[in-house]
Parts: sequence; C-alpha cells; structure tokens
Amino acid sequence: MEKWRATSNLRRSLKSILNRQLSSVSEFRYLNEKRSCQSSFNLIRDCKSLGQVNAIQHRCFSSASTLVQRNPSFSTLNFDDISYFKGLLGEKSVIQDEDRLETVNTDWMHKYKGSSKLLLLPRSTEEVAQILRYCNSRCLAVVPQGGNTGLVGGSVPVFDEVIVNVSSMNNIISFDKVSGILVCEAGCILENLISFLDNQGFIMPLDLGAKGSCQIGGNVSTNAGGLRLVRYGSLHENVLGLEAVLANGDVLDMLGTLRKDNTGYDLKHLFIGSEGSLGIVTKVSILTPPKLSSVNIAFLACNDYSSCQKLLMEAKRKLGEILSAFEFLDTEAMNLVLHQFDGVRNPLPASMHNFYILIETTGSDESYNREKLEAFLLSSMEDGLISDGVLAQDINQASSFWRIREGVPEALMKAGAVYKYDLSLPVEKMYDLVDDMRIRLGDMAKVVGYGHLGDGNLHLNVSAPEYDDKILEQIEPYVYEWTSKHRGSISAEHGLGLMKANKIYYSKSAETVQTMASIKKLLDPNGILNPYKVLPHSLNS
Amino acid sequence: MEKWRATSNLRRSLKSILNRQLSSVSEFRYLNEKRSCQSSFNLIRDCKSLGQVNAIQHRCFSSASTLVQRNPSFSTLNFDDISYFKGLLGEKSVIQDEDRLETVNTDWMHKYKGSSKLLLLPRSTEEVAQILRYCNSRCLAVVPQGGNTGLVGGSVPVFDEVIVNVSSMNNIISFDKVSGILVCEAGCILENLISFLDNQGFIMPLDLGAKGSCQIGGNVSTNAGGLRLVRYGSLHENVLGLEAVLANGDVLDMLGTLRKDNTGYDLKHLFIGSEGSLGIVTKVSILTPPKLSSVNIAFLACNDYSSCQKLLMEAKRKLGEILSAFEFLDTEAMNLVLHQFDGVRNPLPASMHNFYILIETTGSDESYNREKLEAFLLSSMEDGLISDGVLAQDINQASSFWRIREGVPEALMKAGAVYKYDLSLPVEKMYDLVDDMRIRLGDMAKVVGYGHLGDGNLHLNVSAPEYDDKILEQIEPYVYEWTSKHRGSISAEHGLGLMKANKIYYSKSAETVQTMASIKKLLDPNGILNPYKVLPHSLNS
Repeated sequence: MEKWRATSNLRRSLKSILNRQLSSVSEFRYLNEKRSCQSSFNLIRDCKSLGQVNAIQHRCFSSASTLVQRNPSFSTLNFDDISYFKGLLGEKSVIQDEDRLETVNTDWMHKYKGSSKLLLLPRSTEEVAQILRYCNSRCLAVVPQGGNTGLVGGSVPVFDEVIVNVSSMNNIISFDKVSGILVCEAGCILENLISFLDNQGFIMPLDLGAKGSCQIGGNVSTNAGGLRLVRYGSLHENVLGLEAVLANGDVLDMLGTLRKDNTGYDLKHLFIGSEGSLGIVTKVSILTPPKLSSVNIAFLACNDYSSCQKLLMEAKRKLGEILSAFEFLDTEAMNLVLHQFDGVRNPLPASMHNFYILIETTGSDESYNREKLEAFLLSSMEDGLISDGVLAQDINQASSFWRIREGVPEALMKAGAVYKYDLSLPVEKMYDLVDDMRIRLGDMAKVVGYGHLGDGNLHLNVSAPEYDDKILEQIEPYVYEWTSKHRGSISAEHGLGLMKANKIYYSKSAETVQTMASIKKLLDPNGILNPYKVLPHSLNS
Repeated sequence: MEKWRATSNLRRSLKSILNRQLSSVSEFRYLNEKRSCQSSFNLIRDCKSLGQVNAIQHRCFSSASTLVQRNPSFSTLNFDDISYFKGLLGEKSVIQDEDRLETVNTDWMHKYKGSSKLLLLPRSTEEVAQILRYCNSRCLAVVPQGGNTGLVGGSVPVFDEVIVNVSSMNNIISFDKVSGILVCEAGCILENLISFLDNQGFIMPLDLGAKGSCQIGGNVSTNAGGLRLVRYGSLHENVLGLEAVLANGDVLDMLGTLRKDNTGYDLKHLFIGSEGSLGIVTKVSILTPPKLSSVNIAFLACNDYSSCQKLLMEAKRKLGEILSAFEFLDTEAMNLVLHQFDGVRNPLPASMHNFYILIETTGSDESYNREKLEAFLLSSMEDGLISDGVLAQDINQASSFWRIREGVPEALMKAGAVYKYDLSLPVEKMYDLVDDMRIRLGDMAKVVGYGHLGDGNLHLNVSAPEYDDKILEQIEPYVYEWTSKHRGSISAEHGLGLMKANKIYYSKSAETVQTMASIKKLLDPNGILNPYKVLPHSLNS
C-alpha cells in the first residue's frame, strides 16, 4: 500500500498506486457488519435477562423505557381460532411449538420479547387475506413478520399478537432483462435476490448488513436505507409497485411494473415505511440497476468538518455519476477502533487527523473510474480539502478501510456502555451536535460521531465505562430536542417501531401525526395490524 | 456533420467526428416543444368554438366526451363571500374582472373551459389556509391552479369553482449548496428555479417543455415526468418534503430537507400526483443534482424493434452513469416529420430504416463522455444492433436531431386529425400495440409510434385526414383494454384530470380506486378540492 501526499509530484505518485478491481469489497463490509451485530447481541443478552412475559424490556443502552398496556379490545386466541387456521393453512403452517415461538417472539438484538402463542406461515396472498379477514372479524391482533431483523422492536409481538410470517412466500415471479424489473413475493431473502440478479447481470438497488436474513417485504415495509442509497436512491424510487393485504382482508393490487404511471393517488408509498401497520406487503416489483464492474476506495483525512462538507460537495460534482459511498468518522471514533482491535491500524498514521472520509466509486469502466477518482483526489489536495489520503490497492486493503468504518459500532460496544442515536440532520449542522454534546457532557463520557455523510445520516454515540442515569439525563431529551430544532429526523432509517413510537413529535408536526392516525383508522379500524408501533400510544388504541 | 458506418475502420471514423460540447442543446429542444404546443393551440381553437358556460367541451382529437353534472351540494358565491375574501386578501388579490377570469377558466390547449366568477391570489400559506377553511365551511368548491399548463383539464374549473392560484407565492426560501437542497414556494415558475440553480452550479431534476409557465407546486401536484426522468428519477424521489393545506384549512408541515427520514408514514407522497384533489401544495423542498458540463447526442437507426430493446439494455449497462435520454420514433413518424417540415431532413438518408433512436449523454468529463459514447456505438454496430448512425458535431446538429423527435407531435397536427394516447407499457410489449393497431385500422388511418423508450412511455398516435367516429370506435376502448391487459398505464405522465377520471379502472384495481376514494373522503369530506377530477365521477360526489 503506497501513500500519496500533497507534493508537487502528486500525479506521478497517484499513477504509481496499484488500483486493481475491487468488486468484492462490499462483501467484506457486510461480514464486518454481521460480526458487529453479533457482538452487540451478546452484550445485550449479558446486560439484562430475557423472558419476562407480557412486559416490554429494552433500554440496555439508550432511550427511556416504554410501558404499554395491552389493548383490552383485542380478543385472545381460543380453540376455534386454531382450528380455523389449521383448516385454512394445514397443520404444518400453524405453529404452536414453544421453541419455535421463542425465536419469533424475540427480536434480533434481544431487546424486545413478546408472548405470542401462534405463528402462521401463509404461502399465498389469498392465505394472508383470509388470515387477516378472520383476525379482523375476531379482533385478534397481528404482527406481520419477515426476517425479523428490525432494530426498533417493530417485527415482534408486544403481547400475544398472532405472528404472520411471510417467509414461505419466497418465489421470484418474473424478471425483465430489458427494463431490469424484478417481481417477487415478500418473503424472498434479500441475499437470494442479490444472487439471482448477479447471474442476470443486475444488482439490487439496496443492500444491508442483514441481507442474509432480511426479506424484501420487510425491507419495503421499513423503507430500508442501506449502503446504496447515496447512489440509487430510496425504495420510494425503486419500488415500482407492490401488493398489500389490508386489515379487513382486501387485497390492493398495486403491483405495477412501470416507471411512469400517473393514474390516481400513488398509494404504494403508504405501505413503504409504514412498518406493517397499514397492511401486509405480499408482493413487490422493483427496478434493479445493471451490475457495474469497477469499484475503487480511498481513505482520506480532513483537518476540519468544513473541509469534509466541501469535499462532499466536490465529490458530488466531480464524481457524481460514479460516487457510491461517502462515509465519515471523527478522531474519537478512529481512536476507539485502534484501541479496541489489535489487528487494525490507521492507514494515515503520521499524525492524528480530526476527520476521516471513506469514498467509494462504482462504475462501468475500470481504468476511467480509477483515473477520475485520482484526478478528484489530486485537485482536492491542491485545494487543501484533504490533508492526507490513501487509495486501496487490492481487496485486502479495501477491506481494511471498510473494517475501520464498520468497526466503530463494535469498538463502542467493547469499550463499555454506549448510548446510540441514529439521526438525519442537515449536513452543515450535523457535526455541531457532536461538538455541543462534548461541551454538555465534559468528562462524563466520550462523544463519538460517524456515519453516512453522503446521506446526511449521523450516528451519534456516547461512550462511558458503565450506564449512568446522570449521563442519560444529559443526553435525552436534549438530543431529540436538538434534532427537532434543526428539522432533523430521530430515525434516519430504522423506523419507529415500538421503541420510538412516542417520540414521533420530535420529527413530525402534530397535524401530520394526526393525519397519519386518521389514515391508520381508515385502513385498519380495529387497529389489529402491528399495534403499539409507529404512532404514539395515545393515538394508537 | 460526418457519418459513421459499420466498416472495419469504425474507430478512426468515430475519432474523426467533431464532438464539441453541447451544453445548450436542451434549450433548443424546449423551444421546439413550445412551438409545437402553440401550433396545437391554434389548431384546437379552430376546431371548436369556445365559451360555452357550464358545459364541458373537449375531444377535438380523441377520447369519448364526458358530461358531468354540477354537484348540487356546493354553494354558489354570494356578496358576503366576496367581502370576506377582500377582507382577507385585499382588493387586488380578489379578481372578478371578466378578461382575467376568461384566461384562468380556460386550459392551455383550449380543450376545457369553466365558468368561475372568482380568482383568488393568496400570498402565503396562512392565506391559503384561511381561504380553504372558509370555502370548506361554506361548501364552496375550489380549483387549485398554478401555471395552468396541464393537458387533461385538471387545472381549470368545470363549473363555477373558486380558482385559488398560487402564482403570488413565488419566493425561494433557501438553497443549501452542500446538499443541493432547494426550498421554495409553490408558485415558483420552473424556469426561474432552473435559472437560479444554474447560477449556483446545480440543475432541477425535472425539465419540461412548459417550463416558462408551469410552477413547481403544479409540477409536484401532477408528478410531472419531463425530460430528465430516465436520469434523475421521479418527483417521488427528488421531492424531499412539502407543505400542503388540507380542505379544512389544516396545514401539514412535511417540509423536510432530509434524504433519509423514517419517522411514521411518508404522507408527502399522497400529495405528489394527486392533482390538487387532496390538498393545495404551498411549499416544496427538492433535491437538485449538480450541473454537468458535457452533453453528447447521437441519432441512430435500427432495423427492428427487438434491436431497439437490446440497444436500450446495452445503453443502460454501458452508458448507465451518463445516459440522460433514450428516445425513439418509427419510420411513419419520420416520414411525417420529413413531409410536413421543409427544413428538416433525415440525418440517415441513404435508405429508410424502421426505427430511429436518439441517445443523449450528460456527464462531468467532456472527453471521456464522448469517448464512452463512441465506444458504445462502435460495439453496438459490431453487434448488429444499429444499422446506421450519426453523432452531433455542434449545437445546430444536436438541435436538428431533437427537432425531428420533438417535431413529431406538430407534424401530426399539421397532417390532419390525430387521436393521441400517452401510455406506459412494458418495453418488450410496447410496439406490439402499434403493430396491432395497424392491422386493426388497415387503410383507415396511419398509426405512428414514438416516445420515451428509456422510460417505457409510448406516444401512440393515429393520424387521419379528418375525424371520423368509425376510426374512434376502432381505437377505443381497444387501446385502453390492450393497455390494461398488459398492466400498462393509460396516463404515463399527464395525470387523469377531468379527461380520464372515469377511465382509471383500466389501470387501477377496483379495491385500489375505492381506497383512493376513501382517502379523498377522509381528507376532504365535502369534496371541495378540485371536484370532478382524478377519481371516477361515481365515487367523486
């Protein structure tokens, strides 16, 4: 790995750097993410024992606890209900086994646990429709579930809701190589879709750390962001159509496969990101981009946040067509990673810098892609935006760069207690919050800032040797108020679920939330779909 | 203008073609479009006299006529109403002058004419809110209006609805050069926003022929597609937030400026494309891309539609990052243009071809952009997808290429009667409809196919010396049924308005339309907002 610096001979040194094709780089990133989640899982499990029935347990690390009462208007399961479902779905798709129920009652992070006595595994839209029609008539509450990889308690029961898991609906229905439009059932695992498309020369427009488990229906229902948003946009753009079953069993066929369609209200958007509370998504059609062969990655240092911003602006302008990631971490984040992991070293070690940027480009032309990135880096150094930098020469180096960025959450977990906030903020204001929190907390805790700068998504983390309510009081509601004041979002990509349902007003106006509640009431008058989630509990009963 | 052909020495001939920068090309296109619309306007005016009060007149060229009864539950204006509005807005913003009312009662194409007695010109969201609050309490029907450039009778009254025109709300509120996010009032004229952004080094993600008149609030309310959709996506992606006033005067502040925000239902999408029937959009925040300097244009010939499809697939793969237009026209369309316009000639005249393709690329690097397009054309010729082609050498040549493509609608108007259909269809099926219509119509009329192949948007036009019900009977409902059978859209980008409100079922299921009607009823219980439009009249009262 050679380095380039701001010398008069930058062009030559840039040229001398080996930049072979790095198409497998992203694989490494996902593995890192998975490891990180696994570590978190263990930590959380250690932190608090599980299994308390009919109570909500979370907040090992952050957030005020939330207590909800079971909605007394919901029925409880009886023998006739079970008989009905067995008659409808067959014995094998009606699960009452305690071990299997334990798994689907518990979220991925073991922060939330419900006490459902019934898991249903429909194999078709019609079966989903009949399940909901029956549950609605009986006033039985339902949790729609896919891969159960959500992080806000949205995909597990709170009490005894019937779990309707669409995993068995996992067929690819069609793929059109001319338009790149894929139509599939909701239970398709994201990784399987990625593999299928890879053979066709296409990619999914979204990719997540949880891709081995998460399902496209859940991705759509939570409006998953993931790693490719800066390049390919959100699911509101890429999902061309969907089919959803309403609480009363009505099937809304909105499974269009058209790029342009202005015939009436575009209702599919209501189901993208509503976390299964307005209907169960059963089929999806999605626009997939062609697979591109060339990937290059640079790891850079900036002296101040202002330079990071300017670099982003320049990258959008000069790399616009090929920019596929623009990530950042501050020096506290870097120190943590270096301290917690023996095998990790700073690629830019000569002196510590205040900010680090990871830029990834993806394009159709290997040599040009590389040259374009080199030229951009050269001009950015000449303009004084970058103080140091290095280009990955091979997959291992690329992986090591991603390891630093993706290692931050795991390093935070290893360092002790951590209070985590996933925020969207205007880019120019984003780092002010980190500075403010440092002043506010003083010596009480370390404040770490990193995230997806290209998307305006800050991961604000507060690290301390152990949990302390005095620290939490200094953080909340200050962080939410700060975010609200700057018209930010208290949930950039994870949704609200159970965890943040009552905090929605920090990001949405009262009139807007009231309108959401009216639409919920319209489409699900009995409130059976994913109760206690998304909307404030005061409006959710 | 030099030409390149499938010879053994293609590379050299490609290199020899002058490809100087063509950043002004798009300007020419828009001028052509405007001329085309002006001509259409005159033709339509000649075709049928205007001014019949309280009746709907359309269908000079296509579509079955629609007769609607005035909803008797709506009040009629009285002196107290006028006094209230004068007190609220001031004398100058309450227009009762007949000449001014004539203009805002009549649509751009002079196909529709209402008989409103009152035009209101609010200057703020609060004024819009007070107008609607009052109208709702009095049950006075309202037509929201912007630049009044719609093509389906959506922006003019049907009867005596009060016209609320937001033209006076035309301030740019903020622009963030780091993120490219523009926030502005709904009445900003698109061209003014384009000019403003040009000075900042950015562009609007949409551009339309009507940009000199149309307003961003109307663009958002109609989900305008325009010329950049293939590159920058739809307004569902680019509109980050909006503010809308509901029928009861409630203001929904959804004016977020964030790329990622998963806090509750994303209600802004309900107002994008609902044609002012759910609320009046008063402010918009929009993500704008950086301006790129290099534009190149090629005009190509293909022997068959299959080659056009394959060429599109290859263009998406090989030009993916820089492809900004992929338009097509058939030989009937070309013949019409050549026949109707003296100054226009076929850039590929040696022999007539079956299909013509216009490809535009836009990128940040002039020489690379050109080389990339050249390499693509070379390989496409070697693969036999292109039978002939030419690259524009300068602005005049680029303009002449666009003149052919954009001249088709005007040529059709000049040729006599024309039945026009704006359809979205799966790309692989799209041209089958043109073939089917030729068989169906035989010698009765000429069938012409052209449009935005890159977006799957076909303009199917049937040209005859004069209007004849026998021809229309052969076209409708066949075209709508054919489109419906192939899950197409009967309105790709223009919306439904009054013209196609009753035809929605061809593209949307009964359950979906019923859900739309329920949402309309929820948000506008008295149905005062843009009545008789979008939804079928049976559900719209």
